[in-house]
Amino acid sequence: MPPQTRVPRAARGGKPEDVRRHNLGTLLGHLHESGSLSRAELTSRMGLNRSTIGGLVAQLTDLGLVHEERPAGTHAGAGRPSLLVSACPASAQVLAADIGVDRVVVGLVGLGGRVVTRRHRRLASSRSPSAVTTLIRRLVDGVLSDPAAGSRIVGMGVALPGVVRHVDGFVRFAPNLGWVDQPLGDLLAAQIGASLGGLRPRVGNDADLGVLAEHLHGVAVGHDDVVFLAGEVGVGGGCIVGGRPLLGAGGYAGELGHLPLVPGGRACRCGARGCWETEIGAQAIARALGLDKSTSDDLVLAVRRAASEGTSALDGVAHFLGRGMAGVVNLLNPRLIIIAGLLGEVFIAAGDVVRASLYEAALAAPMEQVQLAVPLLGDDAVLVGASELAWEDLLADPVAAVGVASAGVAPAGARPRSVPFATMDR
Amino acid sequence: MPPQTRVPRAARGGKPEDVRRHNLGTLLGHLHESGSLSRAELTSRMGLNRSTIGGLVAQLTDLGLVHEERPAGTHAGAGRPSLLVSACPASAQVLAADIGVDRVVVGLVGLGGRVVTRRHRRLASSRSPSAVTTLIRRLVDGVLSDPAAGSRIVGMGVALPGVVRHVDGFVRFAPNLGWVDQPLGDLLAAQIGASLGGLRPRVGNDADLGVLAEHLHGVAVGHDDVVFLAGEVGVGGGCIVGGRPLLGAGGYAGELGHLPLVPGGRACRCGARGCWETEIGAQAIARALGLDKSTSDDLVLAVRRAASEGTSALDGVAHFLGRGMAGVVNLLNPRLIIIAGLLGEVFIAAGDVVRASLYEAALAAPMEQVQLAVPLLGDDAVLVGASELAWEDLLADPVAAVGVASAGVAPAGARPRSVPFATMDR
Repeated sequence: MPPQTRVPRAARGGKPEDVRRHNLGTLLGHLHESGSLSRAELTSRMGLNRSTIGGLVAQLTDLGLVHEERPAGTHAGAGRPSLLVSACPASAQVLAADIGVDRVVVGLVGLGGRVVTRRHRRLASSRSPSAVTTLIRRLVDGVLSDPAAGSRIVGMGVALPGVVRHVDGFVRFAPNLGWVDQPLGDLLAAQIGASLGGLRPRVGNDADLGVLAEHLHGVAVGHDDVVFLAGEVGVGGGCIVGGRPLLGAGGYAGELGHLPLVPGGRACRCGARGCWETEIGAQAIARALGLDKSTSDDLVLAVRRAASEGTSALDGVAHFLGRGMAGVVNLLNPRLIIIAGLLGEVFIAAGDVVRASLYEAALAAPMEQVQLAVPLLGDDAVLVGASELAWEDLLADPVAAVGVASAGVAPAGARPRSVPFATMDR
Repeated sequence: MPPQTRVPRAARGGKPEDVRRHNLGTLLGHLHESGSLSRAELTSRMGLNRSTIGGLVAQLTDLGLVHEERPAGTHAGAGRPSLLVSACPASAQVLAADIGVDRVVVGLVGLGGRVVTRRHRRLASSRSPSAVTTLIRRLVDGVLSDPAAGSRIVGMGVALPGVVRHVDGFVRFAPNLGWVDQPLGDLLAAQIGASLGGLRPRVGNDADLGVLAEHLHGVAVGHDDVVFLAGEVGVGGGCIVGGRPLLGAGGYAGELGHLPLVPGGRACRCGARGCWETEIGAQAIARALGLDKSTSDDLVLAVRRAASEGTSALDGVAHFLGRGMAGVVNLLNPRLIIIAGLLGEVFIAAGDVVRASLYEAALAAPMEQVQLAVPLLGDDAVLVGASELAWEDLLADPVAAVGVASAGVAPAGARPRSVPFATMDR
């Protein structure tokens, strides 16, 4: 299961120690999502009293996870202002990987969702799961040798364009990587897990994670019904409905690229014909621009060039982009559709055509409510989303996750679920 | 907002009187959904202690809403068995109306979702909102004169094939009725509300209500991801995702009939071209069978005849039925698709063709998880769903809704929100 899209409520029932740890994580989660907050705001958001908040902040400060400061611009004589509490971005970091069809990006992300450093590599001839895992391992080493890398790595999240079983990171189907039933979670755990103190990297679908990142830190903050359309080589989708991730019975929901749009249409890599992806995926865009094989980066440049030249070469793709989005609008009635990656470039290049065909095929009532946008986090949306998978342990129980046994809080025999990076086997 | 699909939890916080009323409603809701339950089962489901449950049952018994009996087949000597608590089906009833394109059905529904009696009428020349409202008013009078009608009518719910604003029953768009922006909720309140003791009839989309009924009382009990495909003249959809109704930003979600399936296809009543409905709606079915104008009932018979004759006339419709369902499977990953109405007949007649084209276009992983079914409640699914809208007040606060001011419970000045039917102005 991917993480909830909202910070959980403060707990009031249960054993006092469990409640306290839960509340520590909840408070840290508020800072992770919202940046700095005053004690007064934390008191009101969590519904706990001031002294409890004060105690939680003090303990998180002892753990090195947060710090307090006087808000900028306050005057000495204006009464005692509520101190601003902020997460320390370097106090805990996570690793994140974004596996694309022709490149892999690995980043180090701090509390608050800020990417501290990133490295990427082209995926050359072999895209096998073990080759990709080895490449990720090498990029992880590089990222961790960066001076910006902190001393506490509390988890790792990995995104890829495919249908993933959340519980163990088993990839059911990633047609554009050519993977069927691959145990990526196990491979990553074997290659990288040991150096994460036994923490198992978590794996999710790229678009599911993209929408999560934009919901927590980007353009979709405050919106409960959001669709993220991820256009790279294939076309994926991630949806939030009623404030919660759209998962479906097995976590496979949101495969927008495989909406059947053209009866008897072009063959899709999934085995069907006429999927949306066959009309708006990278291959369709390359075809429209008269290009043969291109990398994603080349295609982005080609789309931008076509836009600057004012050609109508992309109109066909843009028309189908809008037409498929009408299906999404009619079915899901979203407030916001975020058009990411290569499709975001098409949207910027030929927005009028996209909007015209969307209006043509969408029902008036849901159409009135929808806005279109590109990701606020830009190319980092999926990477930041992957990092969200990795914060789960820290935000569930900061004491255990940072491995600091504060006297009187850690139960006897409790073992940290991660170890400081300095002691890791590299 | 349509009702939640699950009984709410027992309340523990708040003013004692509010808590008690909430818990009375919750207990009654469990009996409404599950039929008879022992006190022991109620104790475990609600997480309250035995004496509290006993007190709640006693108060509901005083209100005439439930009764207790010894379970059948228990022996006198086998110790004291837990008494079975059941709702009294005649103790409170609601009115429900199902507006179709060529007929209106009005029913009286008892606690537990059982249809006590129903009447229907063809919709003749005029389908204007006021003509339909007048017809409903007449059918209501007929239903209430039935000997099975009880003395307490606690609400009314109305379903129609259109896009409805839940808060006031304003119909944004019902293309197959020819309605745009019609204040149906106000019209119903004016014509029928007075005889409901001022209660305002509630209005919802037929497929949204069909999936709700099947989820509470039908084939989808226990399933959290369900799609209800309503095929009459048009094609509507109602979805439950993660155990909750799929509403979208404005309650307009689930318009499955308007998935864009054929580029440049036939003109749809919504104004677009090539919507799914143009290939599987009643008009497409009539065309496939070589019929001119037909009523829904005639078409059902014609589909059954075609099935018994073993013709392949419906194969084209069946193919598109499966192809569109593949889009639903890929997008929502449901556990169950319920194919209702005329489309249920097509599914029964040409299930092999439907399944073949569904398999062809659906991704393997979500396809493994989906089952297909017709409604367990049959033609009553939407009617029973409409009745669910009408139980909300009773299940929120049975004391206020039945208008019986039990000493010590009703606050001073509390007014019942409905009046016994015997005193109604007919």
